[in-house]
Amino acid sequence: MQDNETESELARDFQNVWHPCTQHKDFETIKPLMVERADGVYLFDRQGKRYLDAISSWWVNLLGHNHPRLNAALNSQLEKMAHVMFAGITHQPAIDLASSLIKASAENLSKVFFSDNGSTSIEVALKMSLQYWQQTGKKNKTRFIYLKGGYHGETLGALSVCGLDIFRNKFEKVLSDNIEVEGPDCFRCPYGLNRDSCSAECFEPMEKALEKKNIAGVIVEPLVQGAAGMKIYPPVYLKKLQSACESHSVHLIFDEIAVAFGRTGSLFVSRQHDIRPTFLCLSKGITSGYLPLAVTLTTEEIYSAFYDDYNNWKMFIHSHSYSANPLACSVANETLAIICQKDFMSRLTPKIKLMKELGQQIAEDSRWCGEFRQEGMIAALELVKNKDSKQPFPIEDRVGYKVYLEALKRGVFLRPLGDVIYFIPPLVISEEEITTMMKTARECMAVVLD
Amino acid sequence: MQDNETESELARDFQNVWHPCTQHKDFETIKPLMVERADGVYLFDRQGKRYLDAISSWWVNLLGHNHPRLNAALNSQLEKMAHVMFAGITHQPAIDLASSLIKASAENLSKVFFSDNGSTSIEVALKMSLQYWQQTGKKNKTRFIYLKGGYHGETLGALSVCGLDIFRNKFEKVLSDNIEVEGPDCFRCPYGLNRDSCSAECFEPMEKALEKKNIAGVIVEPLVQGAAGMKIYPPVYLKKLQSACESHSVHLIFDEIAVAFGRTGSLFVSRQHDIRPTFLCLSKGITSGYLPLAVTLTTEEIYSAFYDDYNNWKMFIHSHSYSANPLACSVANETLAIICQKDFMSRLTPKIKLMKELGQQIAEDSRWCGEFRQEGMIAALELVKNKDSKQPFPIEDRVGYKVYLEALKRGVFLRPLGDVIYFIPPLVISEEEITTMMKTARECMAVVLD
Repeated sequence: MQDNETESELARDFQNVWHPCTQHKDFETIKPLMVERADGVYLFDRQGKRYLDAISSWWVNLLGHNHPRLNAALNSQLEKMAHVMFAGITHQPAIDLASSLIKASAENLSKVFFSDNGSTSIEVALKMSLQYWQQTGKKNKTRFIYLKGGYHGETLGALSVCGLDIFRNKFEKVLSDNIEVEGPDCFRCPYGLNRDSCSAECFEPMEKALEKKNIAGVIVEPLVQGAAGMKIYPPVYLKKLQSACESHSVHLIFDEIAVAFGRTGSLFVSRQHDIRPTFLCLSKGITSGYLPLAVTLTTEEIYSAFYDDYNNWKMFIHSHSYSANPLACSVANETLAIICQKDFMSRLTPKIKLMKELGQQIAEDSRWCGEFRQEGMIAALELVKNKDSKQPFPIEDRVGYKVYLEALKRGVFLRPLGDVIYFIPPLVISEEEITTMMKTARECMAVVLD
Repeated sequence: MQDNETESELARDFQNVWHPCTQHKDFETIKPLMVERADGVYLFDRQGKRYLDAISSWWVNLLGHNHPRLNAALNSQLEKMAHVMFAGITHQPAIDLASSLIKASAENLSKVFFSDNGSTSIEVALKMSLQYWQQTGKKNKTRFIYLKGGYHGETLGALSVCGLDIFRNKFEKVLSDNIEVEGPDCFRCPYGLNRDSCSAECFEPMEKALEKKNIAGVIVEPLVQGAAGMKIYPPVYLKKLQSACESHSVHLIFDEIAVAFGRTGSLFVSRQHDIRPTFLCLSKGITSGYLPLAVTLTTEEIYSAFYDDYNNWKMFIHSHSYSANPLACSVANETLAIICQKDFMSRLTPKIKLMKELGQQIAEDSRWCGEFRQEGMIAALELVKNKDSKQPFPIEDRVGYKVYLEALKRGVFLRPLGDVIYFIPPLVISEEEITTMMKTARECMAVVLD
């Protein structure tokens, strides 16, 4: 039950706001949750009812809401300045952040370009790649390869390398002509193999695509295809990809927007698996869910192709007014300081283990769970109508959505991806809270499906 | 002279940071300004030297740096929550901001979609327009008309409606096929008319372009083409445009990212001139230069075409993780509260008058000033080699850049657009500061050119 004031605010919301990725007609029956404050892993509504933020507010929150050190970092920067332009000017928070990122990421990366969100960090990588080829005599290299199921944001450039039809089907006519290839699909592996023991036999289509002419780069979400439903694939695919990109002189763009900063149990997937992408795109967790900020890291080789006398017009003419916002950079610096503390990552180990045990248990117990999969602190249950044939539920049944509504009643906020119920909680979640979160999911699956 | 510590930080900057719209080779001779703090209209370096922020840190700052009320608003929200996801969830700062914007903007606008920067607010407008036509049976309406000299951001969708060659020439091959038309060019009016008395005879090419088939929409920066060099054109052009768009069933996209929130002396150009755009894009000044935030406003007619049963898949599938960031929304709400105070706009009148007097004086005095032009609190001096013929300086002379370097020595930060020296200071600038800012510009022009 909502109080009158909440009711009237929700009416104003319905009247004035267009929410992202939302069919507003759904709000005729179920109103949005009106969140008043947040603390740790919990969101609180006006009545003080709490909800466990099981998906870290769209995968951004790492260290919990209302973190004293992050609040203090923000305040301390606010006393100096909120913002200043970043052309012709620089400032300490940006220099510190860029230097830390360069130190912590793959060894070949040496420059940091700032923007505001994941989509723009991808646009920057695509544009730098295109301009690099224009300026190094390979003017026809203008096409990108992306994976089926890949997601890299929704601005029109980012959308042109999106391998999910629902995001792009209304815009096909204006998207540039890139190349989609079949990539890993471990749950329904067409080779009948297992992700833990295969040699990424599914790399074959990518190998073929790389034979084509005029390829500028390949873009992937390493290890976890998030929007596709937290589809997880093995690092051996990435190893093959790096080697193939090198031999074909093609840029490798790593979109670690969702997976970096500890989600997989390490700071960066690329560094963890000793892979050297040409571009590394980061956002989301970079400010631990406080403020919009994104970066695109690249190599000295790329940078050099833009470095010349001014009048040769080789610079990268791209800007966002709030590039390297000092407030956001300060929170990012403090986030990195906390994550890089000794033992931070090792403290995740028992949590990862517990998620695995609970997830596997659900997969065993429930006739509706086709697969439990996990990569570090990211875990997912894929619901299916038939476990043997892996047949999905009819999309119009909205099974995942029904589970979400049940979980909401029980104080857990887990917005699914279709019929994939997933968990990507703040890394500071306790083992007890992990148990609550996953047992609630199991219970709601039973209520909706059994 | 820099101290040693500043030197070493600037070396780290050069080592690790790729700045926006910057040829880094320029830093071999002139290092970027390292700003430590900011207050009112001033930026301060480490040594305490101050610089008047004559372009509001890329046109974003309205109320001055380190504003007590904005700081307090940010802090007060921080105590509740920094951020929460905006799908399935809503919150007070976003509801308040959306409601205020709807109330204050053109009467036909009724819904607010949030994103993070100007580029994304444009991408949202383009995508909503495209999807609207897809869902209302006009599937071929996929092309946009934009003005020569127009600038709407640099993500690839926004770039596809950019009418400035230097931003797009490296990326032509991947940009979608839109239509550029000659628009107003009042300083070099091909009709030999004057912007204060003409009837926008230059509307002719637009009228012709609108006869073409398959036009989804027209996008313009109303009154001031910013990146083109603060080119100013009269409202009569916009009146004609609105009427032509209506009669051709074409969406009208108003990019007020740079001109809204008091820059022209009113809250919105569209409202001021009683024009009803289909989409209104806002960013920059929305948080008075504190934090990245953007919105795209649209009409009930557009919204309705996306409102349907979920399984008909008509919703707008577009999202940014930090959509409607509560911290940014809170600062935006306080910004609006200040700007909407009685007399705020009328207090600009003497400042606008003073800028006009000083600017006209420079234009009269200097043989290098081709035109002084002004729209409210936005003013510009276009430098030319020959005043009679309006012949520009050779681009490689970098005359504007040289003026900028001189002004920097004198404590005024005015980054030009090519050879256009412009002023878009925080609205709270005093008359004394206006005098300093413009007299310094005049002095630097003399040093460089006389």
